[in-house]
Amino acid sequence: MRDFTFQNATKVIFGRGAEEKVGVETAALARKALLHFGGGSVRKSGLYDRIVASLAEAGVDVVALGGVKPNPRLSLVKEGIALCRREKVDAVIAVGGGSVIDSAKAIALGAPADVPLWDFFEGKARPDRALPIGVVLTLPAAGSETSPVSVITNERGLYKKGFRNGLLRPRFALLNPELTFTLPPEQTGAGAVDMLAHVMERYFTNERDVELTDRLCEATMRTIIANLPRALADPRDYAARAELMWASTIAHNDLLDTGREGDWASHKIEHELSALYDVAHGIGLAVVFPAWMSHVVDHDRSRFAQFAHRVWDVEPDFFDPGRTAREGIARFVAFLRSCGLPTTLRELAIGDDRFGEMARKAVEAGPIGTFVPLGEDDVRTILEGCR
Amino acid sequence: MRDFTFQNATKVIFGRGAEEKVGVETAALARKALLHFGGGSVRKSGLYDRIVASLAEAGVDVVALGGVKPNPRLSLVKEGIALCRREKVDAVIAVGGGSVIDSAKAIALGAPADVPLWDFFEGKARPDRALPIGVVLTLPAAGSETSPVSVITNERGLYKKGFRNGLLRPRFALLNPELTFTLPPEQTGAGAVDMLAHVMERYFTNERDVELTDRLCEATMRTIIANLPRALADPRDYAARAELMWASTIAHNDLLDTGREGDWASHKIEHELSALYDVAHGIGLAVVFPAWMSHVVDHDRSRFAQFAHRVWDVEPDFFDPGRTAREGIARFVAFLRSCGLPTTLRELAIGDDRFGEMARKAVEAGPIGTFVPLGEDDVRTILEGCR
Repeated sequence: MRDFTFQNATKVIFGRGAEEKVGVETAALARKALLHFGGGSVRKSGLYDRIVASLAEAGVDVVALGGVKPNPRLSLVKEGIALCRREKVDAVIAVGGGSVIDSAKAIALGAPADVPLWDFFEGKARPDRALPIGVVLTLPAAGSETSPVSVITNERGLYKKGFRNGLLRPRFALLNPELTFTLPPEQTGAGAVDMLAHVMERYFTNERDVELTDRLCEATMRTIIANLPRALADPRDYAARAELMWASTIAHNDLLDTGREGDWASHKIEHELSALYDVAHGIGLAVVFPAWMSHVVDHDRSRFAQFAHRVWDVEPDFFDPGRTAREGIARFVAFLRSCGLPTTLRELAIGDDRFGEMARKAVEAGPIGTFVPLGEDDVRTILEGCR
Repeated sequence: MRDFTFQNATKVIFGRGAEEKVGVETAALARKALLHFGGGSVRKSGLYDRIVASLAEAGVDVVALGGVKPNPRLSLVKEGIALCRREKVDAVIAVGGGSVIDSAKAIALGAPADVPLWDFFEGKARPDRALPIGVVLTLPAAGSETSPVSVITNERGLYKKGFRNGLLRPRFALLNPELTFTLPPEQTGAGAVDMLAHVMERYFTNERDVELTDRLCEATMRTIIANLPRALADPRDYAARAELMWASTIAHNDLLDTGREGDWASHKIEHELSALYDVAHGIGLAVVFPAWMSHVVDHDRSRFAQFAHRVWDVEPDFFDPGRTAREGIARFVAFLRSCGLPTTLRELAIGDDRFGEMARKAVEAGPIGTFVPLGEDDVRTILEGCR
């Protein structure tokens, strides 16, 4: 087990009506808030009006900025930063899923900064402050509601980059599973894959003696696997929606990687994919992760066999652990398909003509991943395995 | 799943040499700290000198108060409060296990208070501030290093009472598994039982649809069960000590009871036992918990069968779940005995002459426990089952 520091101070308020606390929680941080959201569904559902009413009742002035799209763009972030400065906003409230939260985090970081925001993402500068961030979660997937990470796409060159800093960790996250009853099956499925992927990135590690976190990862994966089909079968199944929502947070609140090192190569490859093709992140991961697994399985068959047995109930073949290992990957793919998720680029109508470009960009800053460090050829081979 | 609020902001620094951070971490909170500890082992091991040196190097003045005993007493707490006031101390640093931390929390709560400390424990007053608390953990067991709870024994009438308030949550906890290499087997064993008990109090709930937290509880219990024998066999096994130490925190950092209601009757019964007989808390729990289980098993055989199967690898008897359930309890008892832990009052040389008194005191404020609410007769029956 590695030495580590763990601190996650986000206040999570979970359950029916949790979003009604937005006024009280924001008022403790700010007098004027930017309300940041995506498309029209937040308005149509009435959620927007309830949140504005709660903020008004608590005496918080509101400036609104909608229009966040999946794979949130730097241009809208810049607009948000300008708005915050002009309106002297002192908190940013995200109402949505990971894209909205990530966009809100970037705005909160850029608004009080003396340097261009992208300098932080490129490692050219380090921030010393950010506006406080609050979240009303509508799509459990990215885990951004308690994470210190923001992933933004810079349209110039279609670079998708993540930035991690404790200042980006939301002060509060309001999680009401009922708000997810209306999610379409594709978003529910893609969200669950994103959660699973967050756990798997941490699970596949070279670190030894990580029993507790292994088991906590397995607990989280099994819960997602058990509850996704239930939520797809009955979108208004509160219990299933609640398990998925809490799992999305646990998958990415940093607890599961205490004492170990995550891999994150699949995420980096997927980032190249979604930067070019604007694929939903979870869908991209459903395609990339199995191909990554097949590429690296022989590096540590014991770990893949443990994954197969403990997560997918594969009976261990003690004479051939590699067979157990591969069966785990097969079950994972079968599970994705049984949930209606694509597992090939063909299903996304993506050809092989830009594999070289993606492979080159993915390793631009050096080999990616830690479980097996991958070079350009590896990434290309994995992309070929996604066809 | 129940609605809940979860927030645990304690900064955990885990690994080799973690205690060396005490100066830097304390200096961020205070200029003068009370260093609170137990007996002479902290001095003999050299830990005390290392901590004082780290604090001095960071410019923190130190006032020392040792002498905390298991089941920490109100009298020493009062001494600490007077000392803090006299010396104008502005943080309390606990170096030790649960007793020292609980005592430090009570001092931190009492020092700035306008009312007698015990009023908080008796619910007669509510605190609005406390001194910041830091922890250097030497005995993984109580989970007090990130919990908001303090349990103190009032010598007048031998009342042991717990008090919970967010102000009591330590600001930082420094966890170095190497500091536990010298723990004697009895303390290692009693500590592990305390951890297990913290998880079990949360596990046995009437709340339905708590899959994620069920599985996180099982993950934590399995880790403790696997690693206690390893730590007993080789006290310097870093991996085993590290798993136990991190498990002690996870068992009691409030994550495992998100969305569910814990029971806590066994803890209350054990508190009566240790208040009268000064039994180590974990040892008392090793005696009380199996008797509690046998008393309540028929209330929810499904839950006990799940416990038996998922935690103790009992093959389910689908025709007789009660049998599976009872086999889980038997395996738990056999595990405790295999680790050299007592499971009867007889082994502690405690007779049955004060069962009535303990049962009466345990239910003084009304029935205890939520899984099965217990009255005086139930507690007496459970104590009889402990003989």
